[in-house]
Amino acid sequence: MDYKKRQNALIEILSGKGLDSAVILCPENVFYLTGAPFVTGSADTLLYLDRDRGASLIVWNRDYEETKDRVKGVNIEKLEVGEKPIDRLKKLAVQSERAGFEEGFVNIGIHNSFKAIFDLVPLEGAIGKMREVKDADEIACIEKAQGVTDRAFSKALGRFSEGMTEQEAASELEYCLRREGAESYAFETIVGSGHRAVYPHGMPSKKKAIGGEAVVFDFGAKVDGYCSDMTRTIFFGKPNGEMVNVYEAVLEAQTAALAAAKAGIAGKELDAVARNILNARGYGKYFVHGLGHGVGIAIHEGPSASSKSEDVFVPGNIITDEPGVYLPRVGGVRIEDMILITDNGCRNLTKSKKDLTVV
Amino acid sequence: MDYKKRQNALIEILSGKGLDSAVILCPENVFYLTGAPFVTGSADTLLYLDRDRGASLIVWNRDYEETKDRVKGVNIEKLEVGEKPIDRLKKLAVQSERAGFEEGFVNIGIHNSFKAIFDLVPLEGAIGKMREVKDADEIACIEKAQGVTDRAFSKALGRFSEGMTEQEAASELEYCLRREGAESYAFETIVGSGHRAVYPHGMPSKKKAIGGEAVVFDFGAKVDGYCSDMTRTIFFGKPNGEMVNVYEAVLEAQTAALAAAKAGIAGKELDAVARNILNARGYGKYFVHGLGHGVGIAIHEGPSASSKSEDVFVPGNIITDEPGVYLPRVGGVRIEDMILITDNGCRNLTKSKKDLTVV
Repeated sequence: MDYKKRQNALIEILSGKGLDSAVILCPENVFYLTGAPFVTGSADTLLYLDRDRGASLIVWNRDYEETKDRVKGVNIEKLEVGEKPIDRLKKLAVQSERAGFEEGFVNIGIHNSFKAIFDLVPLEGAIGKMREVKDADEIACIEKAQGVTDRAFSKALGRFSEGMTEQEAASELEYCLRREGAESYAFETIVGSGHRAVYPHGMPSKKKAIGGEAVVFDFGAKVDGYCSDMTRTIFFGKPNGEMVNVYEAVLEAQTAALAAAKAGIAGKELDAVARNILNARGYGKYFVHGLGHGVGIAIHEGPSASSKSEDVFVPGNIITDEPGVYLPRVGGVRIEDMILITDNGCRNLTKSKKDLTVV
Repeated sequence: MDYKKRQNALIEILSGKGLDSAVILCPENVFYLTGAPFVTGSADTLLYLDRDRGASLIVWNRDYEETKDRVKGVNIEKLEVGEKPIDRLKKLAVQSERAGFEEGFVNIGIHNSFKAIFDLVPLEGAIGKMREVKDADEIACIEKAQGVTDRAFSKALGRFSEGMTEQEAASELEYCLRREGAESYAFETIVGSGHRAVYPHGMPSKKKAIGGEAVVFDFGAKVDGYCSDMTRTIFFGKPNGEMVNVYEAVLEAQTAALAAAKAGIAGKELDAVARNILNARGYGKYFVHGLGHGVGIAIHEGPSASSKSEDVFVPGNIITDEPGVYLPRVGGVRIEDMILITDNGCRNLTKSKKDLTVV
């Protein structure tokens, strides 16, 4: 990864805004700009990027060895026991007056502590915007993560059987993900069978998947810090006619969006391609979420492909195409691929088959 | 869970602060007060708690079915497609002037949108403070999660073998966690072997665990929304003398802290019990993190048992006791139990054995 190039691109933005520096705390942004390791959900390392003096990472004693081993070409500041990051920041930033900050991440308490050092100016999502366009190294990482995911799913299919619980099915799928090379999961694996499939975020339960129920599997791997994201819906036993209709409708909508995706169209236009098909099939009101979202270091990032999204796709965006239909108390189907937007269309990074599958 | 009791306790606090209402967005807090489901890392559902009119949950269309099925006794407001949560909040809160908010969670952008509706007053961590003292239902959940974790570890031990990669070892452990009843993991499983054990947050890699290396396993299950947290260090092959010394020192420190934990002592005092032993053994400088932290709905919550923590324990706190020693480029050992603070001591919720184990 060319971290220096990314840091320089951000410094350009700072110059344009008349800023001396930026303080960056969102761990995905810190990773994007330096490669500094993080644990999902924790914001432990602070990146101070100074127009004149470059990048400094302020790290806890605990994280020093790991950061030092993984981050090159950046000044690493190890905190002493009891020392606060803000105090070290104050020393580093003596010559900086106006600093950019992440207005969508920093809470009021931290904002107040930064305000005691700098005049603060919102970065207006600048780093998130940079992250939306993947470079070749990032595309390779995400393809690798999706390759792990495709291979794992193919192997897990041979381990599924009617009558398994959702948790048992999850255990088989995750086992295969790890064995194929997942360093962790891109998010909490979703397995929802029968009426539980209508819970878009349902955690796997002890409910058995049985009697032709549709089972939604939404899952992903993390490889080299990048996420994959994929959904397949598998029938555990022979499905009834209505759920077959739903499956075919969702697959038609998903495939149509695949064919329509390209640079220059807006998120809401791509969403409409899928939504129009589901409306025509009478299922539109049961498609209760957006068509897709960007994927990268975070499982959900820009650009958005929801029904209200004005984001216009550009080459290098990686987004999901994941329509779903959920009939309350009956069942649900979602099918999701991850695609790379290109000039004239898209490249589907997901290789797993999508024809109706019964185990 | 007695959500009404918790809501009433918060309303008492609001009254004391002269507030009409509170807006609550941190998903763990929303879950604590209502049982509303959430996905780790996403803040999708907004809780509006009004002193006079009680609790309302503002939920996305997508989350409505799941929320409705799981939350009872709370007004549920389903957003229409394209409607913003803040607009619904404005309608609900017409009679409220002064609202409490979560100053440690809400970012600047959201703060500004709330400010257009209310005079905002920080809740000063009030909900987090409530969550620090577990009630009987919560203790039962956490014990259940730790039971899953203990049984899984015991089974996984029989599946480990020298020469396995960290990812292979993780696959076996997580397989057992799911099979024993984990609805998800409490956090990203850590497996660090040999020199990688010095990375307190190292994700499992393709490195083989071999030749007597110490392998740190730090992992937990989520059951009914509550976390467990446990670390064991296992030798893959016969260990050398130095690592045996480190193991014995860490175990002595960990056991001493167990014996000292009780209501009335401060986090920094408990940390010192373990740290003094490691200092005396010459390993103090390699114990680069705090002794422990609270566990509950979140994997890291209050109270803290770090070297600077002034938190004084009370009965009902559930904290970890997890000293570690990490010798750079050599290896590391961490041992962690989860304990319930009682009047005169503590109850160890972790049943897995801690004697030096070689596979």
